[in-house]
Parts: sequence; C-alpha cells; structure tokens
Amino acid sequence: MENRVYLDWNATTPLRREAQQAMAAAWDLGGNPSSVHAEGRRARGLVEEARAAVAAAIGGEARNVIFTSGGTEANALALTPGVLNRSGQAVERLVISAVEHASVLAGGQFAPDRIAILPVHRSGLVDLDALGMILADGPPALVSVMLANNETGAIQPIAGVADLVHAAGGLLHVDAVQAFGKIDFVINELNADLVSVSAHKIGGPTGIGALIVAPDLAAPPALIRGGGQERGHRAGTENVPAIAGFGAAVKAAMASRDTDMARAETLRNRLERGLRQTQGSVIFADDAPRLPNTTLFGVPGLKAETAIIGFDLEGIAVSSGSACSSGKIQPSHVLKAMGYGPELAKSAIRFSLGWETTEVDIDRALKAWRKLAGALLRGHETVLERF
Amino acid sequence: MENRVYLDWNATTPLRREAQQAMAAAWDLGGNPSSVHAEGRRARGLVEEARAAVAAAIGGEARNVIFTSGGTEANALALTPGVLNRSGQAVERLVISAVEHASVLAGGQFAPDRIAILPVHRSGLVDLDALGMILADGPPALVSVMLANNETGAIQPIAGVADLVHAAGGLLHVDAVQAFGKIDFVINELNADLVSVSAHKIGGPTGIGALIVAPDLAAPPALIRGGGQERGHRAGTENVPAIAGFGAAVKAAMASRDTDMARAETLRNRLERGLRQTQGSVIFADDAPRLPNTTLFGVPGLKAETAIIGFDLEGIAVSSGSACSSGKIQPSHVLKAMGYGPELAKSAIRFSLGWETTEVDIDRALKAWRKLAGALLRGHETVLERF
Repeated sequence: MENRVYLDWNATTPLRREAQQAMAAAWDLGGNPSSVHAEGRRARGLVEEARAAVAAAIGGEARNVIFTSGGTEANALALTPGVLNRSGQAVERLVISAVEHASVLAGGQFAPDRIAILPVHRSGLVDLDALGMILADGPPALVSVMLANNETGAIQPIAGVADLVHAAGGLLHVDAVQAFGKIDFVINELNADLVSVSAHKIGGPTGIGALIVAPDLAAPPALIRGGGQERGHRAGTENVPAIAGFGAAVKAAMASRDTDMARAETLRNRLERGLRQTQGSVIFADDAPRLPNTTLFGVPGLKAETAIIGFDLEGIAVSSGSACSSGKIQPSHVLKAMGYGPELAKSAIRFSLGWETTEVDIDRALKAWRKLAGALLRGHETVLERF
Repeated sequence: MENRVYLDWNATTPLRREAQQAMAAAWDLGGNPSSVHAEGRRARGLVEEARAAVAAAIGGEARNVIFTSGGTEANALALTPGVLNRSGQAVERLVISAVEHASVLAGGQFAPDRIAILPVHRSGLVDLDALGMILADGPPALVSVMLANNETGAIQPIAGVADLVHAAGGLLHVDAVQAFGKIDFVINELNADLVSVSAHKIGGPTGIGALIVAPDLAAPPALIRGGGQERGHRAGTENVPAIAGFGAAVKAAMASRDTDMARAETLRNRLERGLRQTQGSVIFADDAPRLPNTTLFGVPGLKAETAIIGFDLEGIAVSSGSACSSGKIQPSHVLKAMGYGPELAKSAIRFSLGWETTEVDIDRALKAWRKLAGALLRGHETVLERF
C-alpha cells in the first residue's frame, strides 16, 4: 500500500522477486513430479533442486528434507510419539519450553499427560537446570526448544540444550522457523535431531515448509499418509511451484543474509534508542542474544490492541506478539512464562524489520509512537512528560 | 512445452488465468489474516471471499469450509476417529471402498483393525448389498466413498450410499476431489456429511484444498493444531494467495463447467471410438456413469510403463492410473478391486481431457496409439492386424 511503513516482517515477509519468478516458471512448466512423462520429470527436477537448497542452508543433507505445508505442519510432524532414539528406543514423552509457538505448545500427537513444560528465565532463555531435572525424572524424552522466539527474538542456547538432551538419551526438535535465514545455524554443530523451517518467513511463498531430520536418525511416523510422495513421509501431490519458490527464496536469503541482518540490527537499535525514552518502558528479552530484526516493546498502562490500531491509522503496521494470537485478548504466553504480569504483557507491541526497512521507516514509527504515547499514556504515572 | 499434447489433466490441470491473477493480487497485498492492521484485514477479506465461493460451488455454507493444504490432508482430517454422529455418539469404525484414493486407503487416524473394505462390482461401482451387511455388523461407522474415481472416472451412487449409512447411524465422507468442478453435486442433496475438494484439480493452485462439513455436524478433531486459524480446525498461517487462487478457480470452473464438460465428453467419445478399434481392448468402468473427461484404457499384452514412454516420445503426455503411483510397478488397486487380473491391469493407460483439449490433440493421440500399438503389441494374438 502507498506510504505504508511495514514493521511486521515476522508475521508476513513480502514475497522475494526470485521466489516469484521461480513459482511462475514452475507454473508454466506444469507437471506432477510423480508422473513419468517429460513434464513430470522436469517438475521432479525443480523439487530436488529446492530440496538441495534448503538442506544446504543449514548444512544438512537433501535426502533428509521432508517438505510440508508449512512450519506448523513440520512441528506437528516432529512431535509424534514413537520416534526412535539412537538406541532404537521409542520416545513416548515430550518436553516443550514454555515460550514455544502455539503449534509446538499444542503437543502434536502426544497425549497431554505425556507433556512436560520447561520453564524459562526472565531473559526468555530456557532454564537448563530445570531441563536437567525434568530429563532425569523419566524415560528418554523428545525435547522441543525453538531457536529464536517469534515474539521477543530471543535466541536459545540450543547447543547446551542438545548436550543435556542427548546425555539423557533423548532427541531434540528445534523450531527454527523464525531464525532460519536470519542467523547462522548448522544442524550438526547444534546437534539438533529434527529442525522445522518455513518458506514464508524468509520471503518465500506461504503454504510450504520442511522438517529436516538429522542424517543418522529415522524420520517420525508420517502424519499425512496416502501416496508415496516425500519417500512416504508426507503424502499429497507435491506443491511444486511453492517448493521451487522456497528454494529460490532460500538461495536469495542466504546470499544477502549477513548484509541484510547487519542493516536491520543498526535500524533496530535506532528504533530501540527511541522507544527506550518512554519512561517505564521495557524491551523484552534484551538480556538475551536476540534476532537482529525483532523488538518486543511494552510500557505499563498501554493497551497493545489500541496502540496497534493507532499505529495502523498513522500508516504503520506492527503487531502484538505473534500474529496467530493478535485477534485474541489474552496476553502473550511468552511474557507470562518470562514472569511478566498481565499489565505489561498486555502492552507488548512487536516491531519486526526486513531487508526493505529504511531509516525513514524507523523515524516515522518513532514519530507515530511519540504521538500515540502522548495520547494513550496520558495521566499514567510512568509516562515521561518531556516526551 | 511446444507442440505437446497434454492428456493428463486428472494429474495436473494447468493454472487458470483467473487463479493466477488472484494469487498475484494477494501477493501484492501481503498481510496475514490474523493480523489486526489494514493489510491483515484485507487478507482476511480475500480468505472469506474464497470460502464463500468454495461453499457455493457445492451448495454448502461458508462457515463449514475448512481450508487444508490439499485433498490428501482434507481426507486425513475427515478420517479421524471420534467424530460425533447425529445421536452424539463417537464413531470409532471406518468403512472405505476398495477403489478409494491412496490418501483414503491409508485410513487416516483409524487403527488398521478398525477399518473394513467395501468391495466394488466389475463396473467399478460400490456393492450396496455388501455395504448393508458391513453396516449391520457393528457399531455406527464413518463410511468413505469417493464421488468419482481418479483412474476410471466412475461416478459412485452416493445418494444410495448415504441412505444406507444414515439408516445405520453412520456418517458419510465423500472424496469429491476428482469430481469437483466437473459434475454437478450439492452436498445436501447427496446427504454427504464430510466432503473433500482440492484446488489444483480445477485449475487452481497446488497446496490448497478444503474439507466441507454438513451444516448440522461438528467438524472432526483437528489434525494440525496450534494457532486458532480456521476456527481451531486447522492451524498454520493461512495460505492467502493459494486460497484466493482457489476461490477464483472455483468461480471460473463453475462458470464454464457445463460447456467445458460437454466439449470434453464429445472429444472423449471420439478418443474412445478410436481406441476401441484395438482388438481385445477395454475401456474400464464403461458400464458405469463416468466423468465426461476420463478414459482408462487397457489391452492384454501391453505394458503401460512402456506405452507411456512411447506416447511421451511422440509428444503426448498420458498416465497410468493415478500419478501418485505412476512410478511404481504394481498394477492399479482400482482395477484389481474391479476383478481384473494383473495382465490387463498392468496395461492400463489413462487419458484425461480438459478445457484446452482439441480435436487435433485427440487425433494426434490416436495416431500415436496406432503407431505404438503396432510396435508394442506385435505378435500378440489379440491385436487386430488391420489396425
């Protein structure tokens, strides 16, 4: 839209030109990769090229990439009881951190009484001592900890989590949807066993993601069964244009990732310097390593829903935590798990930046915030009046 | 591709111009329908417009449409134990016809020992007497019978099936993926309880489908859980461009359906007249009502795999039964269920026609077949030598 400032990249990243072109080319080609004829064989080629690109982005192997309909399905597939650990034992217990995305919190196919919740510190990082105790208290577990949080951007100490999990004979699932293409991670260096990624968070199309399985591990039992697509791990006609778009987006994202993120971080810091001038304000998880593009900001007395509408009227798109729950009235489960009370949690606004964000955008957002804060926080004792 | 004759529409239908435009517009808009800001609200509007179009196409209600990642997921969602029948009783038993698509044959979340197979006649139509006996022999069942078969095009007597199923307190799931947009069907007239459809079979994008639930029935428990999208029935960021493309494709398909299918039938009949000249040949399910665009053809002594490669070299794309199994060597489970032996089943080639198919295409296919038959059936006693 004209003159809009878009600071909601964590919810919706624009489609990259490279992805759009790859999708259009795939549509022109047509063909079903399971078909024997020429169109089918070319479609198969596109799928395998994209699979290699996704694998390469995290140092994995193409044959261990299972394409799914997105991050949510990849998480649901990962969280399936019965996956075998490296001793060949079926894992029937799940441990998930309290700040996971809703699709992990739902627990996949595990029964509620087989799920334990791993607490986090006020920084937003998982409590490794608590993890050790949970793991010691029962059979080997599948542990699901996200690489970076979608609301705060906090980056979890995955390698440390992996050490504890593997020492206890468990398996580690990492929801890397929000971090993928933004920070460096290598599946083997992190010792993750199952990794979820999504295309639309890196400028690829919606409706496509992947679960990547460690080289020496058997994939979890299929969630969607039928035809033999994805080597039996995920049935359904391959979404060739989306897969091709995913591959192209991964390549484009990786090529400019470090430059894009360094730029985003500079702008994000400019934004945060401005926001911190509001007395009593909080940048959540700012003690933790964070994604370079994400700021979750709150101030007592503010109502995030009202503020978001205010920003929207000023031409600025921001969100309240995750888009999945923006329509709901309850405060963020992430902030609750970090120990924040409902007043501050209900005030939280997320700004997320991307490769097209400019200094002008940031300054417009700060100008809008000063106007809104003046109106929305009037009379609230914590507001700095010089603002 | 240049000069190719494409007679594999049941596997891959080209993307309609209307769908392509709707998808491009949705990409330009951006936005996540769960977001509160202007982009989010407009995205929500696109999703709801498409939902209404899909519902209208089968005489259903928009609020009963659950978007999924495709027909396979819609089928998997439908086949979930615990769905309540109209007496509020949980249905824990599944009956599926022997000619269902692989995604239904997989049985969803039902345990193998809770699944009964409904046989079909040699015509390809389900055996209603057998259905009556299966239903009488146990608690209320969820019965899954497809509207039209993807290999033969045979159209099942759904209204008759529904009567038997409902009289026995059961529920009826209809996989309408192959029939949707090709023949008239109205969810209430057929008395179907759950209906699966897919966009890419009608010229919409891949990666999107829907399960439509009868107005007075609760939806099955969610298969993919997490965010509250699709009113809690299917988590995951809505695939807005694909949904918008689906809506546009449905409208376009419905607008020209009767004309397109009348044309396809005329051409299909011309094709079949030509094919029948091969001595010993069979058009499968030709005793049954069939989709106007589908011919499954076989002749003893022919190897379908070889014939398909032969057609491909002649510039003609055809398939062997369903694309999902084209790469596999086993003969079609559909023909086996219809009582055909492996020799004839292994010979089966599917021709499927669409709105761009021309008389010239049909005549080129027949010319190619005459050439191939001469080479591939040489010496086989059933070949008509005058051919």
